[in-house]
Amino acid sequence: MEMALESNAFFIGIEYLAILCWGLSGGLAAIQKGYDIFSIMLCGWLTALGGGLFRDVMLGDLPPVGITDKGYVLTTLFSGIIVVIAHPEIKKLKWTMTVVDALGLGLFAVNGTAKALAFGSSGMTAVFLGMFTALAGGLIRDIFIGDVPMIIRDKHLYAIPSFVGCILTVLVWRGVHYGWFDMRSEMVLDALIVIIVVAIRILSVAFNVTMPGAMPRTHVYL
Amino acid sequence: MEMALESNAFFIGIEYLAILCWGLSGGLAAIQKGYDIFSIMLCGWLTALGGGLFRDVMLGDLPPVGITDKGYVLTTLFSGIIVVIAHPEIKKLKWTMTVVDALGLGLFAVNGTAKALAFGSSGMTAVFLGMFTALAGGLIRDIFIGDVPMIIRDKHLYAIPSFVGCILTVLVWRGVHYGWFDMRSEMVLDALIVIIVVAIRILSVAFNVTMPGAMPRTHVYL
Amino acid sequence: MEMALESNAFFIGIEYLAILCWGLSGGLAAIQKGYDIFSIMLCGWLTALGGGLFRDVMLGDLPPVGITDKGYVLTTLFSGIIVVIAHPEIKKLKWTMTVVDALGLGLFAVNGTAKALAFGSSGMTAVFLGMFTALAGGLIRDIFIGDVPMIIRDKHLYAIPSFVGCILTVLVWRGVHYGWFDMRSEMVLDALIVIIVVAIRILSVAFNVTMPGAMPRTHVYL
Repeated sequence: MEMALESNAFFIGIEYLAILCWGLSGGLAAIQKGYDIFSIMLCGWLTALGGGLFRDVMLGDLPPVGITDKGYVLTTLFSGIIVVIAHPEIKKLKWTMTVVDALGLGLFAVNGTAKALAFGSSGMTAVFLGMFTALAGGLIRDIFIGDVPMIIRDKHLYAIPSFVGCILTVLVWRGVHYGWFDMRSEMVLDALIVIIVVAIRILSVAFNVTMPGAMPRTHVYL
Repeated sequence: MEMALESNAFFIGIEYLAILCWGLSGGLAAIQKGYDIFSIMLCGWLTALGGGLFRDVMLGDLPPVGITDKGYVLTTLFSGIIVVIAHPEIKKLKWTMTVVDALGLGLFAVNGTAKALAFGSSGMTAVFLGMFTALAGGLIRDIFIGDVPMIIRDKHLYAIPSFVGCILTVLVWRGVHYGWFDMRSEMVLDALIVIIVVAIRILSVAFNVTMPGAMPRTHVYL
Repeated sequence: MEMALESNAFFIGIEYLAILCWGLSGGLAAIQKGYDIFSIMLCGWLTALGGGLFRDVMLGDLPPVGITDKGYVLTTLFSGIIVVIAHPEIKKLKWTMTVVDALGLGLFAVNGTAKALAFGSSGMTAVFLGMFTALAGGLIRDIFIGDVPMIIRDKHLYAIPSFVGCILTVLVWRGVHYGWFDMRSEMVLDALIVIIVVAIRILSVAFNVTMPGAMPRTHVYL
């Protein structure tokens, strides 16, 4: 059953779509900084495959798919070429890009968690690795181009929806393991998880929902 | 004998204490930057377990304990909750925090070096991995929140005490191996090493001891 | 044949020379920031061995040679001592340093690609790992000292020559595999690749050759 998940066309489709989404988002960030073509390609690749690279290093699945899978690498190059040509149009599609980015977030959360579970990780480790997959690509990109990471800069919910998505993926996986769902329902449920992640993210941006900081305190007991 | 060290209550106690110390220190750094609760938790976790994560990746002990050990992860979450509530008090305890941070430095230096030796590393590799464990957590935290790393920013001795601690841990380990000490003396000596590391660090801050830079030169022979 | 490459005096000589070149370049960057002796040594070590560390983590060849090979570590310490003493002279040799840095770039590109191929990687993975080896050391150093990475900051060709070098190394390796060249010609050809990489880099700086950015567009179709 584990390998079924990995070799399944549905999950492979999810992964390619997520890579394309984030290749576009990474390439665009590089263009806005005025970088040259090579750096644009590198930023797209880092954003799209950096999270999975991190996940694979942690899992010990080496060398990581981000440098061995020709399909993935070509997808990031393809998305790099798209932004190099179509950047003025893509920049105008601000809301579309927010949705595309949120889609990548949800897809990578499900994909990273599922891969970790398929490698025999515990639920907690799988949630960590799912969140690494979903968050590390953007994090590496931001450190690379010298920005404060978006998961800190963006006050709206960003890590929280990916966290919810990872937890739900673990629950669905356990459900399949205990025989509550079959493989077909698993796919529907996983697609549903992606929609939930996207919805939380988008609603947070639209209605300006933010997380609280440290507890405000007026009296100091020392 | 190697496994004894790993499974020993004394060394496990050291590790938990170090994680708690640095979870507090990392969480506080995030609060001072005004981050939200999630980022505070993440910073505490990164600071406390990032060094060990790095050590385990280098040792090939995957997935790293920082994402598999429930006790460690809960300890960082616990320290995160403490700072979220008690940050005004913790901020006031400036010297206490310097001592807590120094304690983490010493504890992680001993712990990282001991784990590397238990995995069969040479003395030099163990010193490197002990220093990674002691320094990488704070380094990753500083890069993450966009500060110049503390081991550069803080002019007082910071890396040097951890270096001394790692070297001494290797010497004690060799002593046990050659039959000079028994396990009981090893524990006493390792506790002593932590005290030495803390002492060097605290004295350096108290008496403003700093390392020299490059050799000042008045005449250039070219 | 694979092991011959690794144990060959010629390739070992290449690696030592590259480490020395980049140890100098990293130490000098730290001196220009006014860091203390420990940070100078650390910067030299990171720059010289950080790329190989990254390559070995990706290949799963753990612990990485950067922390296990005494010869490599001593070479970086040695280059650190040189810059601490001779920094005013080295600073004056601006063009010499550009050549030394370019030499490191070419040597590490060939060395990283060859090691990846010797570990059974595909051509694409070997090119990635060769480029990591050539570029990651400087990248880590720049992130560490808080600069925008040189591969972005320096508008002249930097990643491109290393890319060309990696591709050529894969081609030469395949040539040996298919029996077109013997081991002796391989060495001559690999030395030639290093010269080509250095030449592209130096000519790019000398004649101010730069890569284009995103396609400039006057009309937006949206």
